[in-house]
Amino acid sequence: MLSDQQERNVRKMYEVILASGSPRRKEILEQIGVSFRIVTSNKEEVMKDEDPAGLVKDLSKMKATDVAEGIKNKSIIIGADTVVAHKDRVLGKPKSREDAIAMIESFQGDSHDVYTGVCIIIKDADSKEQIINFAEATKVKVCAMTRSQIEEYVDTKEPMDKAGAYAIQGKFAPYIAGIEGDYYNIVGFPICAVYQNLLKAGIDLKNL
Amino acid sequence: MLSDQQERNVRKMYEVILASGSPRRKEILEQIGVSFRIVTSNKEEVMKDEDPAGLVKDLSKMKATDVAEGIKNKSIIIGADTVVAHKDRVLGKPKSREDAIAMIESFQGDSHDVYTGVCIIIKDADSKEQIINFAEATKVKVCAMTRSQIEEYVDTKEPMDKAGAYAIQGKFAPYIAGIEGDYYNIVGFPICAVYQNLLKAGIDLKNL
Repeated sequence: MLSDQQERNVRKMYEVILASGSPRRKEILEQIGVSFRIVTSNKEEVMKDEDPAGLVKDLSKMKATDVAEGIKNKSIIIGADTVVAHKDRVLGKPKSREDAIAMIESFQGDSHDVYTGVCIIIKDADSKEQIINFAEATKVKVCAMTRSQIEEYVDTKEPMDKAGAYAIQGKFAPYIAGIEGDYYNIVGFPICAVYQNLLKAGIDLKNL
Repeated sequence: MLSDQQERNVRKMYEVILASGSPRRKEILEQIGVSFRIVTSNKEEVMKDEDPAGLVKDLSKMKATDVAEGIKNKSIIIGADTVVAHKDRVLGKPKSREDAIAMIESFQGDSHDVYTGVCIIIKDADSKEQIINFAEATKVKVCAMTRSQIEEYVDTKEPMDKAGAYAIQGKFAPYIAGIEGDYYNIVGFPICAVYQNLLKAGIDLKNL
Protein backbone atom coordinates (compact mmCIF):
# COMPACT_ATOMS: atom_id res chain seq x y z
CA MET A 1 0.00 0.00 0.00
CA LEU A 2 1.05 3.57 -0.67
CA SER A 3 1.31 6.09 2.17
CA ASP A 4 -1.31 8.88 2.24
CA GLN A 5 1.27 11.34 0.92
CA GLN A 6 2.23 9.08 -1.98
CA GLU A 7 -1.45 8.60 -2.81
CA ARG A 8 -2.02 12.37 -2.93
CA ASN A 9 0.98 12.76 -5.26
CA VAL A 10 -0.23 10.00 -7.55
CA ARG A 11 -3.74 11.50 -7.65
CA LYS A 12 -2.41 14.70 -9.21
CA MET A 13 -0.11 12.95 -11.58
CA TYR A 14 -1.78 10.37 -13.75
CA GLU A 15 -4.71 10.32 -16.08
CA VAL A 16 -5.94 6.82 -16.97
CA ILE A 17 -6.59 6.18 -20.65
CA LEU A 18 -8.22 3.00 -21.87
CA ALA A 19 -6.91 2.30 -25.38
CA SER A 20 -9.88 0.10 -26.31
CA GLY A 21 -13.40 0.73 -27.56
CA SER A 22 -14.76 -2.49 -26.00
CA PRO A 23 -17.82 -1.76 -23.83
CA ARG A 24 -16.91 -4.77 -21.64
CA ARG A 25 -13.47 -3.38 -20.75
CA LYS A 26 -15.07 -0.02 -19.97
CA GLU A 27 -17.61 -1.68 -17.66
CA ILE A 28 -14.95 -3.64 -15.74
CA LEU A 29 -12.86 -0.51 -15.08
CA GLU A 30 -16.00 1.38 -14.04
CA GLN A 31 -17.03 -1.51 -11.78
CA ILE A 32 -14.01 -1.00 -9.53
CA GLY A 33 -14.45 2.79 -9.50
CA VAL A 34 -11.62 3.98 -11.78
CA SER A 35 -11.97 7.38 -13.54
CA PHE A 36 -10.66 7.22 -17.10
CA ARG A 37 -11.24 8.29 -20.66
CA ILE A 38 -11.24 6.21 -23.82
CA VAL A 39 -8.89 6.87 -26.74
CA THR A 40 -8.93 4.19 -29.43
CA SER A 41 -6.22 3.27 -31.88
CA ASN A 42 -6.99 3.30 -35.60
CA LYS A 43 -4.22 0.88 -36.46
CA GLU A 44 -5.44 -2.26 -38.11
CA GLU A 45 -5.06 -5.51 -36.17
CA VAL A 46 -2.81 -7.90 -38.02
CA MET A 47 -3.23 -11.52 -36.86
CA LYS A 48 0.33 -12.81 -37.13
CA ASP A 49 1.12 -16.48 -37.18
CA GLU A 50 2.43 -16.82 -33.64
CA ASP A 51 1.37 -18.42 -30.36
CA PRO A 52 -1.82 -16.88 -28.88
CA ALA A 53 -0.05 -15.41 -25.82
CA GLY A 54 2.56 -13.68 -28.01
CA LEU A 55 -0.12 -12.49 -30.43
CA VAL A 56 -2.31 -10.75 -27.83
CA LYS A 57 0.74 -9.29 -26.07
CA ASP A 58 1.85 -7.76 -29.38
CA LEU A 59 -1.62 -6.54 -30.39
CA SER A 60 -2.24 -4.91 -26.99
CA LYS A 61 1.19 -3.23 -27.20
CA MET A 62 0.48 -1.95 -30.70
CA LYS A 63 -2.81 -0.38 -29.51
CA ALA A 64 -1.32 1.16 -26.36
CA THR A 65 1.78 2.46 -28.16
CA ASP A 66 -0.28 4.03 -30.93
CA VAL A 67 -2.55 5.83 -28.45
CA ALA A 68 0.41 6.83 -26.21
CA GLU A 69 2.06 8.69 -29.09
CA GLY A 70 -0.71 11.26 -29.09
CA ILE A 71 -0.72 11.80 -25.31
CA LYS A 72 1.50 14.53 -23.86
CA ASN A 73 0.49 14.65 -20.18
CA LYS A 74 1.35 12.19 -17.43
CA SER A 75 -0.82 9.16 -18.08
CA ILE A 76 -1.40 5.47 -17.66
CA ILE A 77 -2.42 4.07 -21.04
CA ILE A 78 -3.94 0.57 -21.05
CA GLY A 79 -4.39 -1.51 -24.20
CA ALA A 80 -5.85 -5.03 -24.30
CA ASP A 81 -6.65 -7.68 -26.85
CA THR A 82 -8.40 -11.06 -26.51
CA VAL A 83 -8.44 -14.28 -28.55
CA VAL A 84 -9.70 -17.81 -28.01
CA ALA A 85 -7.36 -20.75 -28.65
CA HIS A 86 -8.76 -24.23 -29.27
CA LYS A 87 -6.42 -27.06 -30.21
CA ASP A 88 -4.09 -25.44 -32.77
CA ARG A 89 -6.49 -22.73 -33.89
CA VAL A 90 -6.67 -19.11 -32.78
CA LEU A 91 -10.21 -17.69 -32.95
CA GLY A 92 -10.86 -13.96 -33.21
CA LYS A 93 -14.24 -12.31 -33.88
CA PRO A 94 -16.50 -14.24 -36.28
CA LYS A 95 -16.87 -12.80 -39.78
CA SER A 96 -20.42 -14.06 -40.37
CA ARG A 97 -23.31 -16.04 -38.86
CA GLU A 98 -21.87 -19.21 -40.44
CA ASP A 99 -18.39 -18.47 -39.07
CA ALA A 100 -19.85 -18.02 -35.55
CA ILE A 101 -21.74 -21.32 -35.79
CA ALA A 102 -18.60 -23.13 -37.02
CA MET A 103 -16.50 -21.68 -34.18
CA ILE A 104 -18.92 -22.76 -31.44
CA GLU A 105 -19.44 -26.15 -33.12
CA SER A 106 -15.66 -26.69 -33.08
CA PHE A 107 -15.23 -26.19 -29.32
CA GLN A 108 -18.60 -27.30 -27.81
CA GLY A 109 -18.20 -30.29 -25.49
CA ASP A 110 -14.53 -29.45 -24.94
CA SER A 111 -12.16 -27.06 -23.13
CA HIS A 112 -10.41 -24.08 -24.72
CA ASP A 113 -8.21 -21.23 -23.54
CA VAL A 114 -8.95 -17.52 -23.59
CA TYR A 115 -5.90 -15.27 -23.82
CA THR A 116 -6.02 -11.57 -23.05
CA GLY A 117 -2.90 -9.52 -23.65
CA VAL A 118 -2.45 -6.28 -21.76
CA CYS A 119 -0.02 -3.44 -22.34
CA ILE A 120 0.22 -0.69 -19.74
CA ILE A 121 2.33 2.36 -20.60
CA ILE A 122 3.13 4.63 -17.67
CA LYS A 123 4.10 8.07 -19.01
CA ASP A 124 5.92 10.32 -16.58
CA ALA A 125 6.49 14.08 -16.43
CA ASP A 126 9.85 13.93 -18.18
CA SER A 127 8.39 11.77 -20.97
CA LYS A 128 10.04 8.69 -19.50
CA GLU A 129 7.99 5.58 -20.17
CA GLN A 130 7.57 2.36 -18.25
CA ILE A 131 5.94 -0.53 -20.09
CA ILE A 132 4.16 -3.51 -18.51
CA ASN A 133 3.20 -6.11 -21.13
CA PHE A 134 1.76 -9.54 -20.32
CA ALA A 135 -0.77 -12.16 -21.37
CA GLU A 136 -3.15 -14.02 -19.07
CA ALA A 137 -4.79 -17.35 -19.92
CA THR A 138 -8.06 -18.79 -18.57
CA LYS A 139 -9.36 -22.27 -19.36
CA VAL A 140 -13.06 -22.56 -20.25
CA LYS A 141 -15.06 -25.80 -20.35
CA VAL A 142 -18.09 -25.69 -22.64
CA CYS A 143 -20.98 -28.19 -22.37
CA ALA A 144 -21.95 -30.39 -25.31
CA MET A 145 -24.41 -28.44 -27.47
CA THR A 146 -26.85 -29.44 -30.20
CA ARG A 147 -26.85 -27.70 -33.58
CA SER A 148 -30.18 -26.03 -32.74
CA GLN A 149 -28.83 -24.69 -29.42
CA ILE A 150 -25.85 -23.21 -31.29
CA GLU A 151 -28.06 -21.60 -33.95
CA GLU A 152 -30.46 -20.26 -31.34
CA TYR A 153 -27.52 -18.67 -29.53
CA VAL A 154 -25.89 -17.23 -32.67
CA ASP A 155 -29.26 -15.75 -33.69
CA THR A 156 -29.25 -13.59 -30.54
CA LYS A 157 -26.51 -11.68 -32.45
CA GLU A 158 -24.45 -11.63 -29.26
CA PRO A 159 -21.44 -13.51 -30.78
CA MET A 160 -20.71 -11.11 -33.63
CA ASP A 161 -18.30 -8.74 -31.85
CA LYS A 162 -16.80 -11.32 -29.46
CA ALA A 163 -13.56 -13.30 -29.82
CA GLY A 164 -14.53 -16.98 -30.08
CA ALA A 165 -18.16 -16.03 -30.84
CA TYR A 166 -19.58 -16.11 -27.30
CA ALA A 167 -20.11 -13.95 -24.24
CA ILE A 168 -19.71 -15.64 -20.84
CA GLN A 169 -21.38 -12.54 -19.34
CA GLY A 170 -24.37 -12.96 -21.64
CA LYS A 171 -26.68 -15.64 -22.97
CA PHE A 172 -23.89 -18.23 -23.35
CA ALA A 173 -23.70 -18.67 -19.55
CA PRO A 174 -25.94 -21.81 -19.44
CA TYR A 175 -23.38 -23.65 -21.59
CA ILE A 176 -20.25 -22.87 -19.55
CA ALA A 177 -19.62 -25.77 -17.18
CA GLY A 178 -16.65 -24.13 -15.49
CA ILE A 179 -13.46 -22.12 -15.83
CA GLU A 180 -9.93 -22.17 -14.44
CA GLY A 181 -8.33 -18.77 -13.92
CA ASP A 182 -9.57 -15.18 -13.93
CA TYR A 183 -13.21 -14.76 -15.00
CA TYR A 184 -12.64 -11.16 -16.11
CA ASN A 185 -9.87 -12.34 -18.42
CA ILE A 186 -12.56 -14.18 -20.42
CA VAL A 187 -14.72 -11.05 -20.58
CA GLY A 188 -11.61 -9.31 -21.99
CA PHE A 189 -9.84 -7.51 -19.17
CA PRO A 190 -7.89 -9.33 -16.40
CA ILE A 191 -8.58 -6.70 -13.77
CA CYS A 192 -6.75 -8.52 -10.95
CA ALA A 193 -3.47 -8.80 -12.92
CA VAL A 194 -3.80 -5.18 -14.14
CA TYR A 195 -4.42 -3.88 -10.62
CA GLN A 196 -1.75 -6.00 -8.91
CA ASN A 197 0.91 -5.24 -11.57
CA LEU A 198 0.32 -1.50 -11.22
CA LEU A 199 0.45 -1.83 -7.44
CA LYS A 200 3.91 -3.40 -7.78
CA ALA A 201 4.92 -0.35 -9.85
CA GLY A 202 3.76 1.87 -6.96
CA ILE A 203 0.41 2.89 -8.46
CA ASP A 204 -2.97 2.17 -6.82
CA LEU A 205 -5.42 2.28 -9.74
CA LYS A 206 -8.45 2.51 -7.39
CA ASN A 207 -7.04 5.56 -5.60
CA LEU A 208 -5.69 7.85 -8.30
CA MET B 1 -33.27 -30.51 -27.44
CA LEU B 2 -37.05 -30.61 -27.32
CA SER B 3 -39.06 -30.86 -30.52
CA ASP B 4 -41.03 -27.76 -31.55
CA GLN B 5 -44.27 -29.44 -30.43
CA GLN B 6 -42.84 -30.33 -27.04
CA GLU B 7 -41.57 -26.77 -26.66
CA ARG B 8 -45.03 -25.35 -27.34
CA ASN B 9 -46.56 -27.69 -24.77
CA VAL B 10 -43.98 -26.73 -22.16
CA ARG B 11 -44.55 -23.05 -22.89
CA LYS B 12 -48.16 -23.31 -21.79
CA MET B 13 -47.45 -25.46 -18.83
CA TYR B 14 -44.95 -23.98 -16.45
CA GLU B 15 -44.52 -20.72 -14.64
CA VAL B 16 -41.01 -20.12 -13.26
CA ILE B 17 -40.81 -18.89 -9.69
CA LEU B 18 -37.56 -17.78 -8.10
CA ALA B 19 -37.78 -18.47 -4.37
CA SER B 20 -35.09 -15.93 -3.49
CA GLY B 21 -35.02 -12.18 -2.94
CA SER B 22 -31.36 -11.87 -4.03
CA PRO B 23 -30.96 -9.23 -6.76
CA ARG B 24 -27.95 -11.18 -8.14
CA ARG B 25 -29.99 -14.35 -8.72
CA LYS B 26 -32.69 -12.26 -10.41
CA GLU B 27 -30.09 -10.67 -12.73
CA ILE B 28 -28.58 -14.02 -13.77
CA LEU B 29 -32.00 -15.46 -14.69
CA GLU B 30 -32.84 -12.26 -16.58
CA GLN B 31 -29.47 -12.36 -18.37
CA ILE B 32 -30.36 -15.59 -20.15
CA GLY B 33 -33.86 -14.36 -20.99
CA VAL B 34 -36.06 -16.34 -18.59
CA SER B 35 -39.49 -14.91 -17.63
CA PHE B 36 -40.24 -15.50 -13.97
CA ARG B 37 -41.69 -13.99 -10.83
CA ILE B 38 -40.19 -13.81 -7.35
CA VAL B 39 -41.87 -15.30 -4.29
CA THR B 40 -39.73 -15.30 -1.16
CA SER B 41 -39.92 -17.61 1.82
CA ASN B 42 -40.34 -16.12 5.28
CA LYS B 43 -38.84 -19.12 7.03
CA GLU B 44 -35.81 -18.29 9.09
CA GLU B 45 -32.50 -19.76 7.94
CA VAL B 46 -31.07 -22.05 10.58
CA MET B 47 -27.32 -22.66 10.13
CA LYS B 48 -27.03 -26.29 11.20
CA ASP B 49 -23.73 -27.81 12.12
CA GLU B 50 -23.15 -29.85 8.97
CA ASP B 51 -20.86 -29.84 5.95
CA PRO B 52 -21.30 -26.76 3.69
CA ALA B 53 -22.67 -28.76 0.72
CA GLY B 54 -25.32 -30.45 2.91
CA LEU B 55 -26.16 -27.14 4.58
CA VAL B 56 -26.86 -25.19 1.35
CA LYS B 57 -28.74 -28.13 -0.16
CA ASP B 58 -31.01 -28.21 2.92
CA LEU B 59 -31.47 -24.42 3.08
CA SER B 60 -32.34 -24.18 -0.62
CA LYS B 61 -34.83 -27.03 -0.22
CA MET B 62 -36.43 -25.38 2.79
CA LYS B 63 -36.93 -22.14 0.81
CA ALA B 64 -38.26 -23.86 -2.32
CA THR B 65 -40.57 -26.17 -0.35
CA ASP B 66 -41.99 -23.31 1.70
CA VAL B 67 -42.75 -21.26 -1.45
CA ALA B 68 -44.09 -24.32 -3.33
CA GLU B 69 -46.73 -24.91 -0.64
CA GLY B 70 -48.50 -21.69 -1.61
CA ILE B 71 -48.40 -22.36 -5.39
CA LYS B 72 -51.34 -24.16 -6.97
CA ASN B 73 -50.61 -23.93 -10.72
CA LYS B 74 -48.04 -25.84 -12.77
CA SER B 75 -44.70 -24.29 -11.85
CA ILE B 76 -40.96 -24.61 -11.61
CA ILE B 77 -39.92 -23.25 -8.22
CA ILE B 78 -36.20 -22.57 -7.74
CA GLY B 79 -34.62 -21.94 -4.34
CA ALA B 80 -30.91 -21.29 -3.77
CA ASP B 81 -28.56 -20.60 -0.89
CA THR B 82 -24.84 -19.71 -0.82
CA VAL B 83 -22.09 -19.95 1.80
CA VAL B 84 -18.30 -19.61 1.80
CA ALA B 85 -16.18 -22.36 3.38
CA HIS B 86 -12.61 -21.63 4.46
CA LYS B 87 -10.63 -24.29 6.32
CA ASP B 88 -13.17 -25.65 8.83
CA ARG B 89 -15.34 -22.55 8.97
CA VAL B 90 -18.59 -21.83 7.14
CA LEU B 91 -19.07 -18.11 6.47
CA GLY B 92 -22.52 -16.62 5.86
CA LYS B 93 -23.36 -12.91 5.64
CA PRO B 94 -21.32 -10.67 7.98
CA LYS B 95 -23.16 -9.31 11.03
CA SER B 96 -21.18 -6.05 11.29
CA ARG B 97 -18.31 -4.03 9.75
CA GLU B 98 -15.89 -5.77 12.14
CA ASP B 99 -17.26 -9.19 11.24
CA ALA B 100 -16.77 -8.43 7.51
CA ILE B 101 -13.17 -7.30 8.10
CA ALA B 102 -12.43 -10.43 10.16
CA MET B 103 -13.88 -12.70 7.45
CA ILE B 104 -11.81 -11.18 4.64
CA GLU B 105 -8.72 -11.08 6.86
CA SER B 106 -9.13 -14.80 7.55
CA PHE B 107 -9.12 -15.87 3.87
CA GLN B 108 -6.98 -13.22 2.09
CA GLY B 109 -3.84 -14.71 0.52
CA ASP B 110 -5.50 -18.14 0.40
CA SER B 111 -8.09 -20.25 -1.44
CA HIS B 112 -11.61 -20.96 -0.24
CA ASP B 113 -14.70 -22.68 -1.61
CA VAL B 114 -18.06 -21.17 -2.43
CA TYR B 115 -21.03 -23.54 -2.17
CA THR B 116 -24.40 -22.79 -3.68
CA GLY B 117 -27.24 -25.20 -3.01
CA VAL B 118 -30.14 -25.32 -5.44
CA CYS B 119 -33.56 -26.92 -5.06
CA ILE B 120 -35.82 -27.08 -8.11
CA ILE B 121 -39.41 -28.24 -7.54
CA ILE B 122 -41.31 -29.12 -10.72
CA LYS B 123 -45.05 -29.03 -9.96
CA ASP B 124 -47.23 -30.76 -12.49
CA ALA B 125 -50.95 -30.54 -13.30
CA ASP B 126 -51.92 -33.42 -11.06
CA SER B 127 -49.95 -31.92 -8.16
CA LYS B 128 -47.19 -34.46 -8.67
CA GLU B 129 -43.82 -33.05 -7.71
CA GLN B 130 -40.34 -33.76 -8.99
CA ILE B 131 -37.46 -32.43 -6.88
CA ILE B 132 -33.91 -31.70 -8.09
CA ASN B 133 -31.62 -30.81 -5.19
CA PHE B 134 -27.85 -30.34 -5.50
CA ALA B 135 -24.88 -28.26 -4.34
CA GLU B 136 -22.15 -26.88 -6.59
CA ALA B 137 -18.69 -25.85 -5.35
CA THR B 138 -16.29 -23.30 -6.88
CA LYS B 139 -12.76 -22.67 -5.61
CA VAL B 140 -11.71 -19.01 -5.28
CA LYS B 141 -8.13 -17.77 -4.83
CA VAL B 142 -7.84 -14.38 -3.14
CA CYS B 143 -4.68 -12.23 -3.36
CA ALA B 144 -2.79 -11.19 -0.23
CA MET B 145 -4.39 -7.97 1.09
CA THR B 146 -3.26 -5.30 3.53
CA ARG B 147 -5.45 -4.23 6.44
CA SER B 148 -6.08 -0.86 4.76
CA GLN B 149 -7.17 -2.53 1.50
CA ILE B 150 -9.63 -4.69 3.48
CA GLU B 151 -11.02 -1.68 5.39
CA GLU B 152 -11.31 0.37 2.19
CA TYR B 153 -13.28 -2.47 0.62
CA VAL B 154 -15.55 -3.08 3.60
CA ASP B 155 -16.30 0.68 3.76
CA THR B 156 -17.85 0.48 0.27
CA LYS B 157 -20.66 -1.34 2.20
CA GLU B 158 -20.72 -3.93 -0.59
CA PRO B 159 -19.92 -6.90 1.74
CA MET B 160 -22.85 -6.50 4.11
CA ASP B 161 -25.44 -8.66 2.30
CA LYS B 162 -22.97 -11.13 0.77
CA ALA B 163 -21.93 -14.58 2.03
CA GLY B 164 -18.21 -14.40 2.85
CA ALA B 165 -18.35 -10.56 2.83
CA TYR B 166 -17.36 -9.97 -0.79
CA ALA B 167 -18.80 -9.60 -4.30
CA ILE B 168 -16.73 -11.03 -7.16
CA GLN B 169 -19.04 -9.09 -9.52
CA GLY B 170 -18.26 -5.84 -7.69
CA LYS B 171 -15.33 -3.93 -6.21
CA PHE B 172 -13.62 -7.08 -4.89
CA ALA B 173 -12.64 -8.14 -8.43
CA PRO B 174 -9.06 -6.70 -8.26
CA TYR B 175 -8.29 -9.10 -5.40
CA ILE B 176 -9.49 -12.34 -7.04
CA ALA B 177 -6.51 -14.07 -8.64
CA GLY B 178 -8.55 -16.88 -10.14
CA ILE B 179 -11.32 -19.42 -9.71
CA GLU B 180 -11.93 -23.09 -10.49
CA GLY B 181 -15.50 -23.98 -11.41
CA ASP B 182 -18.62 -22.01 -12.34
CA TYR B 183 -18.27 -18.23 -11.97
CA TYR B 184 -22.04 -17.77 -11.53
CA ASN B 185 -21.97 -20.20 -8.62
CA ILE B 186 -19.85 -17.64 -6.73
CA VAL B 187 -22.33 -14.87 -7.56
CA GLY B 188 -24.99 -17.16 -6.04
CA PHE B 189 -26.71 -19.04 -8.87
CA PRO B 190 -25.02 -21.87 -10.86
CA ILE B 191 -26.94 -21.17 -14.05
CA CYS B 192 -25.21 -23.87 -16.11
CA ALA B 193 -26.07 -26.66 -13.63
CA VAL B 194 -29.64 -25.34 -13.24
CA TYR B 195 -30.16 -25.16 -17.01
CA GLN B 196 -28.54 -28.53 -17.80
CA ASN B 197 -30.35 -30.37 -14.97
CA LEU B 198 -33.72 -29.06 -16.16
CA LEU B 199 -32.84 -30.03 -19.73
CA LYS B 200 -32.24 -33.60 -18.52
CA ALA B 201 -35.74 -33.48 -16.98
CA GLY B 202 -37.12 -32.48 -20.40
CA ILE B 203 -37.50 -28.74 -19.70
CA ASP B 204 -35.69 -26.00 -21.67
CA LEU B 205 -35.65 -23.05 -19.25
CA LYS B 206 -34.77 -20.56 -22.03
CA ASN B 207 -37.74 -21.63 -24.16
CA LEU B 208 -40.70 -21.88 -21.81
